[in-house]
Formats: sequence, C-alpha cells, structure tokens
Amino acid sequence: MRALYWDGHELSLHLSYPTPQQSKIEDRESKIVGATGGRPESANDQVALIKVHLAGICSTDLQIFKGYMAFRGVPGHEFVGSVVAGPQDLIHKRVVGEINFACGRCDYCNRGLGRHCPSRSVMGILRADGAFAEFVSVPVPNLHVVSESVSDEEAVFTEPLAAAFEILEQVQLNPGDEVLVLGDGKLGNLCAQVLRLTGASVTALGKHEDKLKLIKRSGVRTMLLSDWQPKPFDVVVEATGSASGLQLAMSAVRPRGTLVLKTTIAGEHKVSLAPLVINEITVVGSRCGPFAPALEALEERSVSLTPLIEKVYPLTEGIEAVAHSGKPGARKILLRP
Amino acid sequence: MRALYWDGHELSLHLSYPTPQQSKIEDRESKIVGATGGRPESANDQVALIKVHLAGICSTDLQIFKGYMAFRGVPGHEFVGSVVAGPQDLIHKRVVGEINFACGRCDYCNRGLGRHCPSRSVMGILRADGAFAEFVSVPVPNLHVVSESVSDEEAVFTEPLAAAFEILEQVQLNPGDEVLVLGDGKLGNLCAQVLRLTGASVTALGKHEDKLKLIKRSGVRTMLLSDWQPKPFDVVVEATGSASGLQLAMSAVRPRGTLVLKTTIAGEHKVSLAPLVINEITVVGSRCGPFAPALEALEERSVSLTPLIEKVYPLTEGIEAVAHSGKPGARKILLRP
Repeated sequence: MRALYWDGHELSLHLSYPTPQQSKIEDRESKIVGATGGRPESANDQVALIKVHLAGICSTDLQIFKGYMAFRGVPGHEFVGSVVAGPQDLIHKRVVGEINFACGRCDYCNRGLGRHCPSRSVMGILRADGAFAEFVSVPVPNLHVVSESVSDEEAVFTEPLAAAFEILEQVQLNPGDEVLVLGDGKLGNLCAQVLRLTGASVTALGKHEDKLKLIKRSGVRTMLLSDWQPKPFDVVVEATGSASGLQLAMSAVRPRGTLVLKTTIAGEHKVSLAPLVINEITVVGSRCGPFAPALEALEERSVSLTPLIEKVYPLTEGIEAVAHSGKPGARKILLRP
Repeated sequence: MRALYWDGHELSLHLSYPTPQQSKIEDRESKIVGATGGRPESANDQVALIKVHLAGICSTDLQIFKGYMAFRGVPGHEFVGSVVAGPQDLIHKRVVGEINFACGRCDYCNRGLGRHCPSRSVMGILRADGAFAEFVSVPVPNLHVVSESVSDEEAVFTEPLAAAFEILEQVQLNPGDEVLVLGDGKLGNLCAQVLRLTGASVTALGKHEDKLKLIKRSGVRTMLLSDWQPKPFDVVVEATGSASGLQLAMSAVRPRGTLVLKTTIAGEHKVSLAPLVINEITVVGSRCGPFAPALEALEERSVSLTPLIEKVYPLTEGIEAVAHSGKPGARKILLRP
C-alpha cells in the first residue's frame, strides 16, 4: 500500500509499504500491545483493518519530525475510515479510533486509565504505525462508529476534539468562571469551543486576527496579544504549541487558579517556577481525551470545525502537505489516501 | 531595639533600629495592610507588639539574601514571643504569628484565602519588618496563642510546620497512597512527618545519612539518593530547596499522579515539561499553611521537631548565624534576641 514513512531523518512516500491486511494482522498481533487480549486465536475479532478516508496532520506530527518520541514508522493519529476486515458487525462501518493501544489488563487499564497504560503503543507516535497510509490497523476496543450525520471532514477532528474534552475530565469548570485560552491555532480553537459549552466565560488570546475571527464565530471572546492587559483568570489553557507561551500563561492565572498544559514540546523550557509556589497554582498536564463526548458534540453540531480546514492533499503529495502544515499560520491540512 | 537589617546587599546588625512600640504601631498602621481593618482608632486592638523569644532562620531567608522578593528591612518570619502591647486579653500571652498580613476585605480574604490577598504584606519577606529583632509587630488576627505544654523551641517551628500541613489542604491523600518526599532537609523532614499522619506510605529520599536518620525516627521509610531505583509514586513532594530536584521529582510521579512543589527558588529552572503533559501529571504549588493543625500536632506530640535544632545564637551574632545556616548540611539555626 501507499504510506508516508518517517525514518528518523526524512519523511518519504513508500509505494509498497507492507499492508496491515488480515494475514498481516495476525503476524503483528504481538506488536500491537493489547490488541489480542492474550487470546491470539481471536486476533481477527480484536484488531480491525481500516481503509483510511481522511487523516489530519497535527502539531504533534510536526514535533515527531523534530525528534519527539524518537518515533520510526508511518505517522498519523487523526483519521476517519471504514472497516474492511475485523469483527463482522463492524465491516463497512465508518469509524474513528482512540490512539492509545492499551494492554487491558494492568492497574491503569483496570482503573479506566488505558490512555496511561505503561505498556501501551500509540498510533503513529509510539511503536505502532499510523494513518498516513491507505490502511491502518487498530484494536477493536479503540474504535468508535461515526454517525451518518457527521461528515468525514468533521469526523477527522474527533481525536483533537477529544483532547479538548479531556480538560473537562480533569478540571471542574463552573458557569461564570473566567477562562483564558492561550493560542489561536487549531488546538486553541477546539479548546475554546469545548470550554464554552460549560457556561464558563471564555477568552481566546492569540497573534492572528484571521484565526481569532474563526474562534469568535463560536461565541468566544477574543483578544489580540498586542492588546493584552494582564488580568487574573480562574483557569488558563496553554495551547500555543510553542515554548514561549508558558511564562505568559503562568502570569495570567489567579492565585490558587489552574493552568492546563496542552502543548507537548520537544526540548526544554526555561522558566521561573517560584510564581507557581507563591500563588499556589495548580498545573494540569492534559493529553488525549474521551471520544464519546467529542462524537456527541459533532452530532449535535455544538462545535464548528470544518472552517478550520485549509486544504486536502492526496496522500501521494503528503510530503508537500506536511511542509504546508508547518508554515506559520497554516490551518488544518488533511490527507486523502 | 536590636535588629538584623537587609539593605539589598548586606546583612547588618542595627543596635538602634526603630522599635515598633505602641506609639509606633499607630504611626505604622497604614503600612501594615489589613492591620486596622479600616478602623484606625482601634489600631491598638488590631496590632500587637511582641517581644521575640526565638526566631528561626529559613531557606526563604537565605533566598532573600540572594535577591528573592527584592526585600529590604528586618527579615525573619518564624518566631515565638510574648505580647507586650495590644489587646488586653493577649498581654503576656505566648504567641506565634501567621506571616501574611491580609486586607481582610477583598475577594480572596472573603473566601478565606487571606494568604493570597493581593495587597498583603508578608512578615520579613514583603513590605513588613520581620522577627530577627527584639520586637516585632503583627496584626492581631494573625496571632495564635501557644499552649503551655509546647516549649519555645517547639513553637518556633509552627510556621514551617503549617507550610507542611498546607499540602493536606490542597491534595487528597488516602491511607496506602505511595508518597515520596524529595529532600531530607528541614522542610522535607516536616513534610514527611505530616504526610505520615494521613496513613499514607511515605518514603523520604535524600543525600545525607544523618538527616535521613532523623526522619526515620518518625517512622518514615528513608532512602539514600545513591540507592534510588526509579519507581512511580502517587504523590511526590519536591522539598529539596534546590533547582536540581525538579527533574527527578517529575520522573518519580506516576501518570495522573500529583507533584507538590514546596521549594521557592530565585531564578529560572530549565526543564522539559513534555512528561507533565504526556503523563497528565498535576503540579501543585504549595506555600504557607494553616497554623491550627500545626499547633495541634505540637500539643499532641505527633511530630518531633527539636532534634532538628542545630544551634541557638544570640541575635547579636545573627550574621554568623545566617552564615552557619547557609552551610551545606546545616540543620535549623535559631536566634534568641
């Protein structure tokens, strides 16, 4: 099959990357941690082969190309596709997939924290091939069927939308709370829209008038960084995708307030942590989230995502697509295999 | 009166520093934020003059002498003394004092968070003279009477002990939780002892065999840093007082676990924050705490503090005392005016 491949130095287009076909799935069962639940004979029921309809390029992918997670293989963890092999009741179903492939048996898994399973692989990020390919294989427990009322162009946002919903799993937000989202990019946009659903008073702060305009459409208050007047917020979400946002984020949290870190950056930050201690701020690292509320929000059209799409490239132009995605100001770039 | 004075460059012994006497208290009412509660005529009922019996030198004081908070004046915020002027019912009473002088009227004060009052002054740290002196003046609402069963040598630890109890106000600890305290110094010792009271399984990790022995006496498991085998803990308390502890602390927290920062360091840390996001760790900055449970623990003798005392200096030898306190491995140094 055709697939993009990252070898640690260069991204290339493979025209004959091994397809994770039905026979392949069985070969690979031991590699896909948790896929078989310890029952190799049920491999076909445990792992589905999916024909990818659309895949999204994410900032994490761009970080991977800078060395993040030392990943080698097919990148890509945002996708929508249809099942071509696997359990009978899923065949031909349109699905999205949670990206953490958990063992299903450890303490974390037993506590419902499979996203933190210590022996997990992560699609396109850690020991598992991803979705920048014609086909991808995903453990069945990770799959969610997409309602017919949701388009491919919307469903491909499920994974990053779930990451925004993760904040609500971790932080208690109350109507009237003053919330600042730092960053007007894709993640900032999704976070602002999701947080607004709680009835909190949400302000998005960013550098780009056009991107802030997109966020404003969803009823979120917006502010250009150049107009920023320091003011204490109950909750600040750092979603700039850059190392420089942290200091500003810290300065915008009220004493005893909460700072949510959504940005994963390869490399080190240089920060003074004394304000965290003096103001007794709680910092919450926040990563992948629950797919169910994200799919519900897509069905209910309580969030608006397709305006975020900048361009759809064929997979064969994937290298150009990644380059485009890395340009300052680029919105979401999608790949169609 | 005699007092130590920090001018931003040098610590000196003043033999005739202005005494905060009764008349002085009235002059100073506007400087001590919150002392008068807006009723200047009741100044004498609102601010007490205290003869200092003992004062403790704290790592925060040493940080101040490196530039922390840009403080100028009489340092010192750990003390026990007796009231010589103020409300009639307090005269001659032995007291300790909370160090944040709050306005008593703002949103934070109304929510019981006077320790975060934005217009507060802080004894010996921010806009208020401290206790390295013969006398100190403290707003009456900040004072707590010390039981006769508690010695001066114990009571002088109330403030740092309260800072350890602050952790219990911020983090829900359950019996059986695995807790790591990083740092075997004074603060680490107090934190380990206090956290043990919850029934959690506490391990103290440090560099000094003699200091770990002190902690072990309180029933806390101890481990030398050289014997450290990485292992995930539910809660990690960073109390090393040094910038280098942070990275180790981060690596010792389990996914979705909690890292408590007790160390205030002047200057910047260089850290990779990606693990916080990937493992969805919650970082809780933790500073001053509630005096009531600290005094209760002293009365009940559920913590043991006097073995931490290294030496008591007369105030006139305060400069030598501060130098001694800054020596690696020094335990608590006290000043007796």
